[in-house]
Amino acid sequence: MTQTTDPATESTADDASPQARVNAWLADFESALRARDAEKAAGMFATDCFWRDLVSFTWNIKTVEGRDGVAEMLRACLDHIDPSGFRTTEPPAEADGVTEAWIEFETATGRGRGHLRLKDEGAWTLLTTLYELKGHEEPRGGARPRGAEHGVNRARETWAERREREARELGYQTQPYVLVVGGGQGGIALSARLRQLGVPTIVIDKRGRPGDQWRKRYKSLCLHDPVWYDHLPYIKFPDNWPVFSPKDKIADWLESYTKVMELNYWTNTEAKSARYDEATREWHVEVERDGQPVVLRPKQLVLATGMSGKPNVPDIPGMDTFRGDQHHSSAHPGPDAYAGKRAVVIGSNNSAFDICGALWEKGADVTMVQRSSTHIVRSDTLMEIGLGALYSEEAVASGMTTEKADMVFASLPYRIMHEFQIPLYDQMRERDQDFYDRLEKSGFRHDWGDDGSGLFMKYLRRGSGYYIDVGAADLVANGDVKLVQGQVTELTEDSVLLDDGTTLPADVVVYATGYGSMNGWAADLIDQETADRVGKVWGLGSNTTKDPGPWEGEQRNMWKPTQQPALWFHGGNLHQSRHYSLYLALQLKARAEGIPTPVYGLQEVHHTS
Amino acid sequence: MTQTTDPATESTADDASPQARVNAWLADFESALRARDAEKAAGMFATDCFWRDLVSFTWNIKTVEGRDGVAEMLRACLDHIDPSGFRTTEPPAEADGVTEAWIEFETATGRGRGHLRLKDEGAWTLLTTLYELKGHEEPRGGARPRGAEHGVNRARETWAERREREARELGYQTQPYVLVVGGGQGGIALSARLRQLGVPTIVIDKRGRPGDQWRKRYKSLCLHDPVWYDHLPYIKFPDNWPVFSPKDKIADWLESYTKVMELNYWTNTEAKSARYDEATREWHVEVERDGQPVVLRPKQLVLATGMSGKPNVPDIPGMDTFRGDQHHSSAHPGPDAYAGKRAVVIGSNNSAFDICGALWEKGADVTMVQRSSTHIVRSDTLMEIGLGALYSEEAVASGMTTEKADMVFASLPYRIMHEFQIPLYDQMRERDQDFYDRLEKSGFRHDWGDDGSGLFMKYLRRGSGYYIDVGAADLVANGDVKLVQGQVTELTEDSVLLDDGTTLPADVVVYATGYGSMNGWAADLIDQETADRVGKVWGLGSNTTKDPGPWEGEQRNMWKPTQQPALWFHGGNLHQSRHYSLYLALQLKARAEGIPTPVYGLQEVHHTS
Repeated sequence: MTQTTDPATESTADDASPQARVNAWLADFESALRARDAEKAAGMFATDCFWRDLVSFTWNIKTVEGRDGVAEMLRACLDHIDPSGFRTTEPPAEADGVTEAWIEFETATGRGRGHLRLKDEGAWTLLTTLYELKGHEEPRGGARPRGAEHGVNRARETWAERREREARELGYQTQPYVLVVGGGQGGIALSARLRQLGVPTIVIDKRGRPGDQWRKRYKSLCLHDPVWYDHLPYIKFPDNWPVFSPKDKIADWLESYTKVMELNYWTNTEAKSARYDEATREWHVEVERDGQPVVLRPKQLVLATGMSGKPNVPDIPGMDTFRGDQHHSSAHPGPDAYAGKRAVVIGSNNSAFDICGALWEKGADVTMVQRSSTHIVRSDTLMEIGLGALYSEEAVASGMTTEKADMVFASLPYRIMHEFQIPLYDQMRERDQDFYDRLEKSGFRHDWGDDGSGLFMKYLRRGSGYYIDVGAADLVANGDVKLVQGQVTELTEDSVLLDDGTTLPADVVVYATGYGSMNGWAADLIDQETADRVGKVWGLGSNTTKDPGPWEGEQRNMWKPTQQPALWFHGGNLHQSRHYSLYLALQLKARAEGIPTPVYGLQEVHHTS
Repeated sequence: MTQTTDPATESTADDASPQARVNAWLADFESALRARDAEKAAGMFATDCFWRDLVSFTWNIKTVEGRDGVAEMLRACLDHIDPSGFRTTEPPAEADGVTEAWIEFETATGRGRGHLRLKDEGAWTLLTTLYELKGHEEPRGGARPRGAEHGVNRARETWAERREREARELGYQTQPYVLVVGGGQGGIALSARLRQLGVPTIVIDKRGRPGDQWRKRYKSLCLHDPVWYDHLPYIKFPDNWPVFSPKDKIADWLESYTKVMELNYWTNTEAKSARYDEATREWHVEVERDGQPVVLRPKQLVLATGMSGKPNVPDIPGMDTFRGDQHHSSAHPGPDAYAGKRAVVIGSNNSAFDICGALWEKGADVTMVQRSSTHIVRSDTLMEIGLGALYSEEAVASGMTTEKADMVFASLPYRIMHEFQIPLYDQMRERDQDFYDRLEKSGFRHDWGDDGSGLFMKYLRRGSGYYIDVGAADLVANGDVKLVQGQVTELTEDSVLLDDGTTLPADVVVYATGYGSMNGWAADLIDQETADRVGKVWGLGSNTTKDPGPWEGEQRNMWKPTQQPALWFHGGNLHQSRHYSLYLALQLKARAEGIPTPVYGLQEVHHTS
């Protein structure tokens, strides 16, 4: 994306060449935009079309559909966005009647990158993204700081002194512009970007060390996503990094990253309450740091407490009488104490399988309670068929950088993404048919998503309902881990009762029962009214299981303005934390600098949880 | 260096093309080597020629000169090295009658990379380097570890458990193959490479945290080398890293690196004594770890205690009667306690200037005692003229990777390196003529090295005698820092006396008097006999000030076998720690694996200190 098209090549390009076609389209498009002719610009799109914008036109994360959608958005945005300078950054490619081009452009206040898919009828998909604000470019590469201050200066403050003073004063004598609640990968990636942009930021976490979000979980945990998908901004994992990072290793990396990127990361700090003062337009957040109360007054509040952060602990009669250990999967300490014990794990998704596998390996007698059907994909298969083209050693070797892969991914509109996914999962099913046959023979209820679109769409729609198999599925298939179907109705002193009358004797019960919507965090921290006003977080409105319609076009409330001024949600997997932290950081930076940020199409709320 | 020459291109290349000429030379060279015809191969070199080998032919770091030198080396090495497969890795370039080519080749036990400069008469310079041992390739890229162990395994040990067990057992139940004494950048870079090669290694340091080698020095210290020159192996600094890293920032990086690269780094550990047991071929090293004695029995002992590590503290009459503070520059705490005090700094090189500048900024009354002439180059000028082509933002933009820059640097034989340096320093003199005029007017004695070859040759020859000016030279030039010339003869209770009778009243005396040869560490740790057998460390034998002849061809005793079996010296600046750690690591790995390593041309000892 850094190669500049040679003007000489442009002018001599064959009219029928992909380069000529894209050049012509961009030139016409730009002149329509310059003329503020929204209808004409919209008419250059195909009838079925999608324009996905990440902050560059809409100051929102927004996909508009159809020529009407494009025209409406342009009418609202063109005057203040004032886009110009559209050009390709590498030669476009054509395949199957679609010409694909990487583009750059600028707006009144920033610079953007994008991607275009052109059909005979016009633009089929357009991605536009903001990557920097004019006059607020990041100090990197040639613009990096000098470090040593040359010359003589009697008021010299060393790097360490300046850093220590900042850490000492911020939150006390000075106020952060942004407070990020939650210091996992999401909070860390966002804070690193804000630090680079010079936005005073504190990230708080209730745990003792950065990385404890991973470190404190069950000991067998490894990332289910591969290393190429997991890079943080600015510092890539070295090429000796494991494909699937063990939890303690990723935890140590996050801790080092936090230090090296000079984040103001407050450990042992819990947010107790927050309220927004409409008059002063700032938050009043009571936190407890190392047991001491501190009041913070940030202008912006980001909840980065984890899209899988707020445990759903079921309320089952008899829980208070059960004498054994019982805990949510997020609090499961690992199997060491349970050798020879009877374990009942309620749930059949990722955590349930990981925990069942580790308990069985340690010699526990393990029963899994499946309450609803689950989608399983074998890890090797998912890596090869699902991610290989964008995130793999082969992709790297073919020149697919992480940044470019992220943009390819972002260029596919959610509305049609399942159409690209379904054939991949058909391939996976075929490749692992034996595996699925064995699994179903064991009585396991398996599905491929409502429309057969598999794991990634489940993740985007509901954030649950699947297991990336790294071996434990075989334990269920062969009966080593016992499988029962049903709903739990009651706990006794020493057992779990199901709705069909089954009694499962238990020394330990693990509730692998998932997580609630992130606005639950807002209810806890602010109030229920605010949580309801913001509404459900995550999901696309696909009208599939656990993702009710209407269609939203983008993930609800993530990385973009919400119905509560100055309240933001950030998170997701490492890929999302890396990629979307840029757009959230730019939105916050623009506000910090007083750059106007008129939001187009602020989402309506259709569900409160 | 990764581009493969297309065979089709080779065969159709014009006979007069650089590619054809290099191909022909390499083919003839290889067939002479295959025929074990050392004379014929040597005859393919120019009369004045240099072959520099880093471990691939000689299992040594060795430059041979002239056809006789080449022939003698080949006669000794060809049979067991069995070199083959010479080929270019990118199209050769020609300029000023010299054709330059990047090459690859292999030997009986390893794979190598190199660089060739061809003149009409034959090869002028040849660099050959080993980069990996066959069957012992590093687990990187496509060979990286999986991390998660898929499948079920009742004996599963997690990453954290394995790492903790290793850390607990190594040095107690199990013995390291290599013990590295000194945990600065040298010890850290070497240990990282050995970890990657699977060689059990402990690195010990007397200080409390990795990075304290920098952290504990005077507070204004910043690296004088720029970031592009300073990368460690495996993990590059991010592109927001300052050009000149402040000491605490590089210290934090080293600490994080140590953790992330999983080094067995023992802090608070001092080596008390070491002796080599010829019978068992292992060292017996008594160390004190956190105050507790531990005996280590490594097969190989590396002293990485710093080429600027062993302070030269002068022995001056009256030092015991002086009532103020006095310390070597390496122990100087910084200026904070000396505002308004009278400071005498003995010496006029890097540390002296840095310390004088910081003391003056803090409001001390500062006098610098210049004992001998010093070479000064302004930092900006040095960066631009001295390093810019290889190590700069512009070099990176033009495709000059750090690894390639290191190889370009390594390809210039030390014997003629000053010829390349002299014109650069002529440029610097011209550019900063005003600066030098002012400096000399102040009475400062300035030189450009014995032969006008400047700073880098001084570094390689004697490791001293210069200052990279970041501003403090102006303080001397304008008299803010007072300058006196002479030798110190005595200290009284409150002053420093010079040989010309001058009395300098002093509240604090800083001995910026440099460092001794690294074999002084061997004398302390092992015994004087061993130190004398090994001889002087560092320097080229250039017969210039502080680097007595005869000519050695390479830096004495660094990164290569010494006259004491199983004793090695490692260190230097960040560039050298990065680059040469590879060759030392490969020498150690080969020995650990029992691969024969017949050393050609083990250096003789001409000086004991």
